[in-house]
Amino acid sequence: MGTVVGVDLGGTNVLAAAVSSDGEATDHIKETTPTGGPDEVIELLVEMVTSIDDSPAAVGVGFPGPVSQGVVIEAPNLAGWTEPVKLAKRMAKRLKAPVTLGNDANVGTLGEARHGAGAGAVNALGCWMGTGIGGGLIIDGRLFEGQSGTAGELGHVPVEMTSPRRCGCGRWGCVEAYAGRASMRAMVDRLIAEGGSSEMVEIMEDKGKTRFTSSVWKKALKNGDEVATAIMDEAVIALGIALAGMINTLDLDTLIFGGGLAEKLGQDHVDRIEEVTLPRLMAPDVKRRWVVASLGDDSGVVGAAELARAAEQAV
Amino acid sequence: MGTVVGVDLGGTNVLAAAVSSDGEATDHIKETTPTGGPDEVIELLVEMVTSIDDSPAAVGVGFPGPVSQGVVIEAPNLAGWTEPVKLAKRMAKRLKAPVTLGNDANVGTLGEARHGAGAGAVNALGCWMGTGIGGGLIIDGRLFEGQSGTAGELGHVPVEMTSPRRCGCGRWGCVEAYAGRASMRAMVDRLIAEGGSSEMVEIMEDKGKTRFTSSVWKKALKNGDEVATAIMDEAVIALGIALAGMINTLDLDTLIFGGGLAEKLGQDHVDRIEEVTLPRLMAPDVKRRWVVASLGDDSGVVGAAELARAAEQAV
Repeated sequence: MGTVVGVDLGGTNVLAAAVSSDGEATDHIKETTPTGGPDEVIELLVEMVTSIDDSPAAVGVGFPGPVSQGVVIEAPNLAGWTEPVKLAKRMAKRLKAPVTLGNDANVGTLGEARHGAGAGAVNALGCWMGTGIGGGLIIDGRLFEGQSGTAGELGHVPVEMTSPRRCGCGRWGCVEAYAGRASMRAMVDRLIAEGGSSEMVEIMEDKGKTRFTSSVWKKALKNGDEVATAIMDEAVIALGIALAGMINTLDLDTLIFGGGLAEKLGQDHVDRIEEVTLPRLMAPDVKRRWVVASLGDDSGVVGAAELARAAEQAV
Repeated sequence: MGTVVGVDLGGTNVLAAAVSSDGEATDHIKETTPTGGPDEVIELLVEMVTSIDDSPAAVGVGFPGPVSQGVVIEAPNLAGWTEPVKLAKRMAKRLKAPVTLGNDANVGTLGEARHGAGAGAVNALGCWMGTGIGGGLIIDGRLFEGQSGTAGELGHVPVEMTSPRRCGCGRWGCVEAYAGRASMRAMVDRLIAEGGSSEMVEIMEDKGKTRFTSSVWKKALKNGDEVATAIMDEAVIALGIALAGMINTLDLDTLIFGGGLAEKLGQDHVDRIEEVTLPRLMAPDVKRRWVVASLGDDSGVVGAAELARAAEQAV
């Protein structure tokens, strides 16, 4: 097979790279994500791919939203995407190459499970901890997307029955309502308003940030910030409940944690999540790996390329 | 292939039958489960199988407890099983035929997903509602047991974070603690002790029963019994939360409900569970089937035989 190009389309940036069959990414290109809607984005993606190889063997694209069979269903993080878009088909026509589309969390999980921290995984979950909580599932060594393409939505596993918190998705009690950075930010504001002691705003300003980034959380937790600690304790328990449900039903062998919070807080944080999950497992003694994603910015392009290769092999 | 025999070993009875490749069970034999431990049980199973066919092509056994690679790990419902038992190997030696062992909920789910109410399912969950809550998963059309054989444990998906109820398994907040008949019985006693109005004890006695069977529940719910209604409402919500988590992560196309409560309360009850689950789904509009198991007592033997066939084909 010739060059396989992986594309990681994010809300802020697009990253593209050539990816070898052993998962090595080279010829990286990074651009700012256009805000003018699908036509403009497709134009840029095609340009980026052809500047890496003007006749690629296959192209994989990771997309920040729900996709199904090559079609973008919704694009909550991209301006100007109001209708479903046949992204794979439109790119394939321009590139004269097969294009495979995947959800970003799914694709990142595939990258990490094949060539990153989870290499060798048979049944794995990727847990992407950022503004929201993303998830991806590897079942029997392959990315599992389900029939409608909506599998892997770890962030919207409900974890609370009696007094569920409202989630950004409009539903109630989702793990993301406790462990996503956006919800955690709202909780900081609420706890401070209720008289909780916190220097998170000061830490944010000292760092010259305008939002509670993962590094703000890291510093606050290191300082023993009362509000930050209480919110993170709850987030860890919520994650433990969601993960326990998935491990009890899927007997997962590998849990991979990526995204800003996982990268900043590192293995110690993952160890805490494991510790909270274990007492909730039916088979706590089964050996499982709990790891931080290791490919960094490359997990998306590597996973997208893997997805493209898998699609070609399946044909 | 010659005769494939399916065996459904339960805490009370053992059922065995010849099962054709299109899932038809014939030559049924039913015996009382021996209470003298593994040797006695194996002796009976071998006798039952050989009385159906003294040279079977393959044998599948559904077991009421956790199993892994032909070995019984634990037998919580059988007297005298104190150590792991190599059940498949020991039976195979006696029968001179391949023997495949599966967990009862898994095997029942496979039977229903192939030849029962869920026929044609690609990604399915079996939810077995009895004394406890059992679960089985079909992924990409095949029974999914995980690497350690412990997959599918729906009953121990946690559904509550802030005030979890103790489960019979010793853990906290499992769906079984809300929706398993044993836990529901304990809740009846508690609510009555707290002054709740209920005629469940009288209904039980009228029916000549000594425990709250599924038919006692049915009658009490039909009568609008206050305590029974409150407990069942909560059970349905707990199930909805557990199922929503599984559907959001696995994009299941088929949900199959079996066991005493499902059979007695029927499709109306399944419809209620669906109704409670839908608002918690990321993709509520995807078409999914919510069905009551249709093979009755045969789901276990049919599924066990299917498992044996699948193992033979994989060799």
